[in-house]
Amino acid sequence: MTAGVAELPGAPAVRRRVTVVLDGFLEHKAGTAAKLRMPTEVTECLRDFLAAGGKRLRPLLCVSGWQAAGGHGTPEALIKAAASLEMFHAFCLIHDDVMDNSARRRGAPTVHRRLARHHAHGRTATAARRVGVSGAILVGDLALAWSDELLHAAGLTPCQLDAVRPLINDMRSEVMYGQYLDVTAAGRPTADVEQALRIVRYKTAKYTVEHPLRIGAALAGAPLAVHEALSAYALPVGEAFQLRDDLLGVFGTPEVTGKPSLDDLREGKHTVLIALVLQRADAHQRSVLHTLLGAPRLDEAGGDRIRELLTATGARDVVEDMIGTLRAQALRVLETAPFPPHAAAHLRQLADAATARAS
Amino acid sequence: MTAGVAELPGAPAVRRRVTVVLDGFLEHKAGTAAKLRMPTEVTECLRDFLAAGGKRLRPLLCVSGWQAAGGHGTPEALIKAAASLEMFHAFCLIHDDVMDNSARRRGAPTVHRRLARHHAHGRTATAARRVGVSGAILVGDLALAWSDELLHAAGLTPCQLDAVRPLINDMRSEVMYGQYLDVTAAGRPTADVEQALRIVRYKTAKYTVEHPLRIGAALAGAPLAVHEALSAYALPVGEAFQLRDDLLGVFGTPEVTGKPSLDDLREGKHTVLIALVLQRADAHQRSVLHTLLGAPRLDEAGGDRIRELLTATGARDVVEDMIGTLRAQALRVLETAPFPPHAAAHLRQLADAATARAS
Repeated sequence: MTAGVAELPGAPAVRRRVTVVLDGFLEHKAGTAAKLRMPTEVTECLRDFLAAGGKRLRPLLCVSGWQAAGGHGTPEALIKAAASLEMFHAFCLIHDDVMDNSARRRGAPTVHRRLARHHAHGRTATAARRVGVSGAILVGDLALAWSDELLHAAGLTPCQLDAVRPLINDMRSEVMYGQYLDVTAAGRPTADVEQALRIVRYKTAKYTVEHPLRIGAALAGAPLAVHEALSAYALPVGEAFQLRDDLLGVFGTPEVTGKPSLDDLREGKHTVLIALVLQRADAHQRSVLHTLLGAPRLDEAGGDRIRELLTATGARDVVEDMIGTLRAQALRVLETAPFPPHAAAHLRQLADAATARAS
Repeated sequence: MTAGVAELPGAPAVRRRVTVVLDGFLEHKAGTAAKLRMPTEVTECLRDFLAAGGKRLRPLLCVSGWQAAGGHGTPEALIKAAASLEMFHAFCLIHDDVMDNSARRRGAPTVHRRLARHHAHGRTATAARRVGVSGAILVGDLALAWSDELLHAAGLTPCQLDAVRPLINDMRSEVMYGQYLDVTAAGRPTADVEQALRIVRYKTAKYTVEHPLRIGAALAGAPLAVHEALSAYALPVGEAFQLRDDLLGVFGTPEVTGKPSLDDLREGKHTVLIALVLQRADAHQRSVLHTLLGAPRLDEAGGDRIRELLTATGARDVVEDMIGTLRAQALRVLETAPFPPHAAAHLRQLADAATARAS
């Protein structure tokens, strides 16, 4: 998520409080591990990983959902439930990085790389790499289990727990299925726009936007109409957000996006943009694309050739149009949504920020 | 776990009912996946995996714990909670197989191998292997999330849920830490017996025996004295069980144990047996062992040389003595434990079966 996100009023305070909850929880876990004479690098890895990712997007959206449902203030139970989403997200990213064999995340080595180095002594490079991967799978597993502990230790009422549990269940399954679609589609780009949109919906729109908003709303005891309005808003915003991210991943200025502009193309990611260009390309263009997309050694000249085709076939313009349409759709929902005015205003701002060009 | 396990009276009925719960749950999940147009192989993999492993050891121990605490009959909520332990175990094994790069489990290809084949079309062998590993990590993640859903959908009372949640939390963290110790110790065998015993305690004694027993007891509202007696019984039984398994892994007849007798030695697993032989070996013997242990191409002659040293140094006898001591310790607990007579009798039988020679 490289696009900027509108600041919730009070966001810095929410971020700080979420961080305090996560630090306290992990300190407690480190204490337990020490008592059991278990290795300390597990909690250290998680603590550093969580400290490095300061945006707290999902916790903030959880608070936005609470406010959209008329929730007052930011009670500690809400902050703790929001923190459990951040711990869950750490699980997702740590496992994603293993699957993508990524070297860096949040300006530091990924967990599997860090653990490989930690356990390198007396091992071959291959053996150390394997220990690193195994360790990261387990650190991710612990983050998933601990996100569940955080949720249940949040001090929610039985009624609040009953309201959020089905949403948490859906969130977990859907993001895992979304990632499954993503990894099984990668490296074999096709013209299947529907499939690419399904990945966007499950990995981003539902996971990053809809579920956090609705979990916050459920904690405030939101009626069905609020949940429906939040979903109707969240899905187009989330999809537009990801489409903007895909465009920036290819056309963005690396200095602005913070992401090398060849990574997505080298990976052969099955994005909507790529599905569209394959759909619209003629036979010659398609064969060029099939040679270049997913080539691990793709160079700048190859990247430029793909960019030319994305523009020439009109795929880039179609994605820009889709973003505009989705943004308008989300804003229309807000006109009639049963949210308090300050919550609606914030969500409007968020829709603008998530879909705006950043290059 | 290759050693035989004593049959709980009514075990076949419990097994059948657990299987019905798991099948029903996965059928429901397959239906949801179909509605969302998600790939069907995820639930198919899990269903086949769970169908192939018919022992249901942890669910049976959960029922034993219920009975030890004076629980009557086998209510459906107990069976469902027990089934959630089996789903959790599927998660453990699927991820373990990825970490160990195992080819087969329960007489069939492991999940990562099966998914690699499923997604082989249009991919290089390396790319297919990576998709298989990623897919298996995700199928494991889903099994973990779904074990939690099963537990919460079991129809437990709030009081039962409150009683089991801390045990479930400990079970999850401790088996993950145990596996972490195991993978970071593998391939670098040392004379550290304490460390080897710690792995046995967390990966087997607590996870396989103590937690299932105590979770069942908690469901029956067991008082502290019952929990303490179950722990005092479970830890030595579980440790003895694993020590027997380690001996059989090296000295057992493959036709009886169902496990090739060179696997553990080739992996360089950090077992108590190996730690002891390294502790007792002289300099020459130690250098022979360091050359042979963990060698991926270790042959039968090399295996025989290790077996000779295990016997000559007395390591094998020490482990036999430990098993005897642990077994006696567990049986002593049963003499004064506050369990109903039929439950105590069953646990006595279990201690015998778990520690007996099978070759």
